[in-house]
Amino acid sequence: MTHASDMTWEDFRASTGRVAILPVGSCEQHGPHLPLSTDTVIAASIAEAVARDIDGIALPALAYGYRSAPYSGGGSLFPGTIDLSFGALTAAIADIVGELIADGFRCILVLNAHYENQGAIVDALGSLPPTEGLKVLASSWWDPVPGDVLHSLFDSGRFPGWELEHAALTETSLMMHLAPHLVREELIPGDSGFAAPAYLRFPLAEGDIPAHGALAPSAAATAEKGRLLFEASVSEIAAICAREFAG
Amino acid sequence: MTHASDMTWEDFRASTGRVAILPVGSCEQHGPHLPLSTDTVIAASIAEAVARDIDGIALPALAYGYRSAPYSGGGSLFPGTIDLSFGALTAAIADIVGELIADGFRCILVLNAHYENQGAIVDALGSLPPTEGLKVLASSWWDPVPGDVLHSLFDSGRFPGWELEHAALTETSLMMHLAPHLVREELIPGDSGFAAPAYLRFPLAEGDIPAHGALAPSAAATAEKGRLLFEASVSEIAAICAREFAG
Amino acid sequence: MTHASDMTWEDFRASTGRVAILPVGSCEQHGPHLPLSTDTVIAASIAEAVARDIDGIALPALAYGYRSAPYSGGGSLFPGTIDLSFGALTAAIADIVGELIADGFRCILVLNAHYENQGAIVDALGSLPPTEGLKVLASSWWDPVPGDVLHSLFDSGRFPGWELEHAALTETSLMMHLAPHLVREELIPGDSGFAAPAYLRFPLAEGDIPAHGALAPSAAATAEKGRLLFEASVSEIAAICAREFAG
Amino acid sequence: MTHASDMTWEDFRASTGRVAILPVGSCEQHGPHLPLSTDTVIAASIAEAVARDIDGIALPALAYGYRSAPYSGGGSLFPGTIDLSFGALTAAIADIVGELIADGFRCILVLNAHYENQGAIVDALGSLPPTEGLKVLASSWWDPVPGDVLHSLFDSGRFPGWELEHAALTETSLMMHLAPHLVREELIPGDSGFAAPAYLRFPLAEGDIPAHGALAPSAAATAEKGRLLFEASVSEIAAICAREFAG
Amino acid sequence: MTHASDMTWEDFRASTGRVAILPVGSCEQHGPHLPLSTDTVIAASIAEAVARDIDGIALPALAYGYRSAPYSGGGSLFPGTIDLSFGALTAAIADIVGELIADGFRCILVLNAHYENQGAIVDALGSLPPTEGLKVLASSWWDPVPGDVLHSLFDSGRFPGWELEHAALTETSLMMHLAPHLVREELIPGDSGFAAPAYLRFPLAEGDIPAHGALAPSAAATAEKGRLLFEASVSEIAAICAREFAG
Amino acid sequence: MTHASDMTWEDFRASTGRVAILPVGSCEQHGPHLPLSTDTVIAASIAEAVARDIDGIALPALAYGYRSAPYSGGGSLFPGTIDLSFGALTAAIADIVGELIADGFRCILVLNAHYENQGAIVDALGSLPPTEGLKVLASSWWDPVPGDVLHSLFDSGRFPGWELEHAALTETSLMMHLAPHLVREELIPGDSGFAAPAYLRFPLAEGDIPAHGALAPSAAATAEKGRLLFEASVSEIAAICAREFAG
Repeated sequence: MTHASDMTWEDFRASTGRVAILPVGSCEQHGPHLPLSTDTVIAASIAEAVARDIDGIALPALAYGYRSAPYSGGGSLFPGTIDLSFGALTAAIADIVGELIADGFRCILVLNAHYENQGAIVDALGSLPPTEGLKVLASSWWDPVPGDVLHSLFDSGRFPGWELEHAALTETSLMMHLAPHLVREELIPGDSGFAAPAYLRFPLAEGDIPAHGALAPSAAATAEKGRLLFEASVSEIAAICAREFAG
Repeated sequence: MTHASDMTWEDFRASTGRVAILPVGSCEQHGPHLPLSTDTVIAASIAEAVARDIDGIALPALAYGYRSAPYSGGGSLFPGTIDLSFGALTAAIADIVGELIADGFRCILVLNAHYENQGAIVDALGSLPPTEGLKVLASSWWDPVPGDVLHSLFDSGRFPGWELEHAALTETSLMMHLAPHLVREELIPGDSGFAAPAYLRFPLAEGDIPAHGALAPSAAATAEKGRLLFEASVSEIAAICAREFAG
Repeated sequence: MTHASDMTWEDFRASTGRVAILPVGSCEQHGPHLPLSTDTVIAASIAEAVARDIDGIALPALAYGYRSAPYSGGGSLFPGTIDLSFGALTAAIADIVGELIADGFRCILVLNAHYENQGAIVDALGSLPPTEGLKVLASSWWDPVPGDVLHSLFDSGRFPGWELEHAALTETSLMMHLAPHLVREELIPGDSGFAAPAYLRFPLAEGDIPAHGALAPSAAATAEKGRLLFEASVSEIAAICAREFAG
Repeated sequence: MTHASDMTWEDFRASTGRVAILPVGSCEQHGPHLPLSTDTVIAASIAEAVARDIDGIALPALAYGYRSAPYSGGGSLFPGTIDLSFGALTAAIADIVGELIADGFRCILVLNAHYENQGAIVDALGSLPPTEGLKVLASSWWDPVPGDVLHSLFDSGRFPGWELEHAALTETSLMMHLAPHLVREELIPGDSGFAAPAYLRFPLAEGDIPAHGALAPSAAATAEKGRLLFEASVSEIAAICAREFAG
Repeated sequence: MTHASDMTWEDFRASTGRVAILPVGSCEQHGPHLPLSTDTVIAASIAEAVARDIDGIALPALAYGYRSAPYSGGGSLFPGTIDLSFGALTAAIADIVGELIADGFRCILVLNAHYENQGAIVDALGSLPPTEGLKVLASSWWDPVPGDVLHSLFDSGRFPGWELEHAALTETSLMMHLAPHLVREELIPGDSGFAAPAYLRFPLAEGDIPAHGALAPSAAATAEKGRLLFEASVSEIAAICAREFAG
Repeated sequence: MTHASDMTWEDFRASTGRVAILPVGSCEQHGPHLPLSTDTVIAASIAEAVARDIDGIALPALAYGYRSAPYSGGGSLFPGTIDLSFGALTAAIADIVGELIADGFRCILVLNAHYENQGAIVDALGSLPPTEGLKVLASSWWDPVPGDVLHSLFDSGRFPGWELEHAALTETSLMMHLAPHLVREELIPGDSGFAAPAYLRFPLAEGDIPAHGALAPSAAATAEKGRLLFEASVSEIAAICAREFAG
């Protein structure tokens, strides 16, 4: 069984020697064409696929993430961006990982799909008390994507950096592959030419963020690119797990 | 559209006049025969059905709940019971409801399916700052089930109280109706004759809780009883919403 | 000596092998006829009597409790209901019990008399670090009252459940027995016929709670019933202590 | 009525124009001859007497205080010294004073009798949100004692400063006046000649504190001196209230 | 006057119409050749220069920062890396900025020099209550450095990204320009060839980080490059302030 | 090397057997004639001199302190008084001392120069987990100043107590010795005759504090007195360290 959700507690107890994968998503605006669940769908899908590859188990995803930042998610003022405070997310991750350890797991992967969650994950995991034999990994799905795969997706365009790849080519392609019924292709916005300024401004002013919420272009997105990206991420992360959790 | 998950942020913005429903579940042992996701499945299913009935919207469920207590959930030592601390859950609920209010919602229902969550929900909602026109309701799915419906389910048996109805007749019936593929009927335990003592003991001792984790009998559970219970809960909660959120 | 308050620190040091009892009360409206200290008087009185029975020691009572809830205490808007936040009460209990443990106590009973305190007590005690030989019990005074004693008090009336027994027959009887000078018998309200709805509403509306603050009838209260209830609670709790703390 | 404890909520509601006095004590070692409740007895007694003088109301005392410091209370390692953390005490005071304000009180006195509580009281009151017409005072019972009264008590001896007046002449005299049955006169220690060093040491070493816990001499204590001190403190504090809360 | 440190409170009061700049540094290992104060020196120097340019005032620098991360600072296990927790740094920044606002400042710049501080700064500033006319900017010194300046520094080498520019070419050059007496040029390490893996590992293993603590090469650092970088950063940030705080 | 700031991490690692000194100052109004950095300058100067005397190391000073109190610092409403909350300062000190311990230091001195910081320092250090061989001292610079030195400074005047020695004779003298360019001698105020009342008032009223912010006279301050005081404090603290940290 791959999903902890489907297990009885006795199944779960029998799985404590396997790798436990905690997907962390968000409920966040993703432009005019992608659903609020984009990050959660991606995190849960990759977690599930990695779990299948390495005979690990996927935990229920966290469906709310840390506060969206202006130049990586559009900021928290967009309706539909339903954010947790840093302390709430950090406590949740620390609680969950702590319970996994108490139940006997020693190989844990926190798999992230929301840019802003990274700091909270590092904070939670960096505060774990030392435990004999414990190994916890944290990766965002994009971290191990090989450069050549990435650049092949952008054709003649330029990869704008992961911070700006919000509701843009990579996420749109992934959703076209993973959940095409949730993508409104007809609403994919044109290139807003947005370039993030070199500083943050509080409060945000009108026009600081493209009105539609996408931070980089996605017109060149395709389901096939999504498949390539998904498979690259899954196989890299599975390989990392195999290597790190061996022995 | 019923699910916030499926919406773009513009859909969501267009929905702020509707009732927003936040389902709160858990990841908790539910005896030898029910999955860890039992509370989350029930919360999400009832939230979705109520949302359809009243044209509300269902938010992503919280899939982890507050610390399982010995005599209402078996306690936090069962493997698979992955609990949040009080502060983590309270902060998450307060953050999410606060974001809904900031986005313009004025009619919000927190729908709970995990006994121990009740205090955290009350704490979070009782601390909301006053907002013109805001009405927030909180209900556990069992709260409004009419007594006659409830008692009809128990045939000759005795309803043991909601506290002990953990992994017992009502939850088992609901899961047989909602997610029969996740119920291991062959593992439904016999009646352990468990009666909760009149006090709590820290730490728990061997034998304080039935070893299989179910606190009351479930042998008489059926999918048909689950359907009756589900429909009773949904229609009562929908009626409450209709009445309370009118005008 | 029974009361820690009266001891010097050397007396206290000599008592660390005894059972320490921490009474937890509240400062809360109790209808038109009972004083704000009702819960504290009851908690302290039962703690003292149990301490005498089992040669334990009674600590100073906590005279403020966790936030009164609408359908178990009338809610925090009644003047005279002076509530602590969850964190404040939890921290206080954890601090006090932690100090008792550090001083050498291994047998500790937290004795509660305010419905809403239960969650905070469970939270505080459930977070104690493991200590060799430590046993901590938690009980509300009503938990171990035998059903036959309870039902004998209600004559032809119906026991409305402990949640609603606020400023009602049992508390009124107990106060008539324990502190008759603080009971305004002439102000005992008639039956308001209040029945709690199946959900919570934030904010409360006019009329959600009986205006006088009592949630169930108390006209049939007598000092003699108070004595019976008091003695039943004390002897049951003393028996629990004897059994649990033996050896 | 002077004591909030004895009031019904309707009495309390009728009192919101009066001065509310919150006594803050401790559960702390007070040498071989004074009880753990020394600070609480003094705080509650002075609060009650001031309340009578100015027609104010006395709230239930906080019977646990902030962590005893080595050179003002002997430190937290003495058995019987049962301390709250800073956050727990600060939150409790802020919660209680906040509830008083919400109930309509505008004249509030926090009356302290435990040296270490001073910082927590200042922190709690210094964080109150501004409220039209609100005036909150904080005083320790010793703050307004006139110098001549104080020095008259010390005969030929030297006043060691309030920090060291722990379980010493003033507290012993007060307790001989207020609660003589709780004073073990035969155990009053001789002068240990203790002088606090000019720095704090963590952890404390053997001998840093007089073994009996009293930080300054009390052999010259008498009930009559206690009466003088009590009356001086009460009349000064009553005068402060009269002056500050006038108009 | 440029430095708040040197002002009396009356000078400060007369400056509330100017731009206040809060430099945030760290106490962190910076390889074998740079001092622990590297980030603080850089933050304070740039803050001072910008303040001079725009007639702003520079506040005392925060000399401790948020927890060093393995692949942007070497991690918290290096001796000399003295880190604050997220909550401590966030609270400090929120407190300080809140006090500036209360004192009347409406133009505030938080100027950062430690990679890991970025999240804490965003969290603190993102939680500020709305204030009429308030504008707060946050920038790390490297954010506005023009690409052509940056790339001109790397000669034939490759810019490794700011995350890895720890104790590397840019910081070394800046310190050779700003505080040459604190740079041990003879200890500048050779290129370790370090490349950060695509995931984080808890706990770190031997060899995850170059033993000397520098994450990228610095052999090509010169004081002249430091001067160019410093002047580029200062003039860009001054220009941002001029533009944003105008009017 | 005396300053941790100037060390590389390898220097620091080589110093873990030495005494680490953490100076704690403030950013606070100090009358019309002293700079906001007064406490920080004094704390850092004494820390440095003690470090030289005992071959210890001085850490970067904390340049912001806990909330100024009315009758020991003038209160937090003076512009330029930029305060931390209790929790922020306590967390910072606990974090820093905890990191020093983790790095191997066993002899640590927290050296304070801001009256209100004392409680936060005690709170932070009193919560340290026990560590084999660890000794932490806390002293304010004035604590060990011998009485005869102190009284010699006041000529015919009266020492008003350390609480009121704010921006007064001792601090003014110290600053004339340590940083004469930061003292505006021409602005030294006359004697305001201020005497603190015997209680605290929230909120403060106009006139509760001398308008210039100095709480006691400083007209008799001289650089020579500053030198005497500085040397007395340094030599006493050095002697304490030598004695306490020996062996």
